[in-house]
Amino acid sequence: MADLTQLLENEVFMAFASYTTIVLSKMMFMSTVTAFYRLTRKVFANPEDCESFGKGESAKKYLRTDDKVERVRRAHLNDLENIVPFVGIGLLYSLSGPDLSTALLHFRLFVGARIYHTIAYLTPLPQPNRGMAYFVGYGVTLSMAYRLLKTRLYL
Amino acid sequence: MADLTQLLENEVFMAFASYTTIVLSKMMFMSTVTAFYRLTRKVFANPEDCESFGKGESAKKYLRTDDKVERVRRAHLNDLENIVPFVGIGLLYSLSGPDLSTALLHFRLFVGARIYHTIAYLTPLPQPNRGMAYFVGYGVTLSMAYRLLKTRLYL
Amino acid sequence: MADLTQLLENEVFMAFASYTTIVLSKMMFMSTVTAFYRLTRKVFANPEDCESFGKGESAKKYLRTDDKVERVRRAHLNDLENIVPFVGIGLLYSLSGPDLSTALLHFRLFVGARIYHTIAYLTPLPQPNRGMAYFVGYGVTLSMAYRLLKTRLYL
Repeated sequence: MADLTQLLENEVFMAFASYTTIVLSKMMFMSTVTAFYRLTRKVFANPEDCESFGKGESAKKYLRTDDKVERVRRAHLNDLENIVPFVGIGLLYSLSGPDLSTALLHFRLFVGARIYHTIAYLTPLPQPNRGMAYFVGYGVTLSMAYRLLKTRLYL
Repeated sequence: MADLTQLLENEVFMAFASYTTIVLSKMMFMSTVTAFYRLTRKVFANPEDCESFGKGESAKKYLRTDDKVERVRRAHLNDLENIVPFVGIGLLYSLSGPDLSTALLHFRLFVGARIYHTIAYLTPLPQPNRGMAYFVGYGVTLSMAYRLLKTRLYL
Repeated sequence: MADLTQLLENEVFMAFASYTTIVLSKMMFMSTVTAFYRLTRKVFANPEDCESFGKGESAKKYLRTDDKVERVRRAHLNDLENIVPFVGIGLLYSLSGPDLSTALLHFRLFVGARIYHTIAYLTPLPQPNRGMAYFVGYGVTLSMAYRLLKTRLYL
């Protein structure tokens, strides 16, 4: 059996693992926020979810949409759209032998930007707070993609 | 050329590969279910999709939403929101040298919970069936994240 | 510190890294298309996004949906639903020691199919252009999943 623990003795890879775990956990937290607003505001998408609040016709009034719930759901989908490319491209970038300091800069900027994006989305803060956070994260992922393709292109 | 096949000779990594392939294939199956309901119920989101059912104005009546189709789409999105963190965190966790039996417990619980979640969502089963399945999957991913950060944190 | 650069000296893995980076960058490009249509058509989902177009009540008229924006968003979500399994299963498949020529065939077909899918969705081209592109991508991922489970199943 091969000893894989060497993979996580590489400092770039350990840093990637730590930041990715943090940003994916943050994304999972959005589900909890959605569930919190659904329960406290009694806003549900499925009939079976509101049965504990009333039977039959009286429960149907909770099958509705709500501005706050939709806002959290948009923030969650935006996370998915941006964190998925970061994880995929970042994993390959981490294996391509980048400088530790350059890699750390990329990971820290991305995770910081996505946390700020969530705060700006849920508060909400006026634009361009959310827009700037979005562009920083987007730029970090594109920068890693560019470095990866520049050094290791194989088509 | 390096011999990478050693990676898939590690038992934890092989188990991760098998369970991940199964749960991602299950997620892809949701597209097929959506397509099945769209075609049998004639419910479409794009004008070009209903052209075989009628031309011009008569086709537009198929541009609509349907409870069953929307239910499958919610189940699919919930899969994405939960399986993406499992794959990302699980990959890194698998490389961090966990016990085989602990790792297998995590993978089996997660995949079982997500399959049960899909059954509970599509049947639909009364709550808290779907809610419990969701929490088991969520807890497994958080448990892997915690173990990873506890042993390998590098910020 | 382990030398991980050997991973990206494996030709199959380098090819996987290049095609994955390209297809994930293509997926990120969908955000830019959405933003372009939102700004040129003045169609927004959040009140804070339309504040530069007017204050208070006069800004609310931009909180609306638009066929073109919704079309791009559906294409983006379809990308997520299909590219996530490709990246996860493809990574594990690449590590399972496949023939270089077989692997390249899978990666090229998938990336070509997803680019064609986007063109067919956004133009839009008449069906079955988009449907065929979708099935090619889906088939490639299932083929990799099948080969992986056949050689490396560990449950």
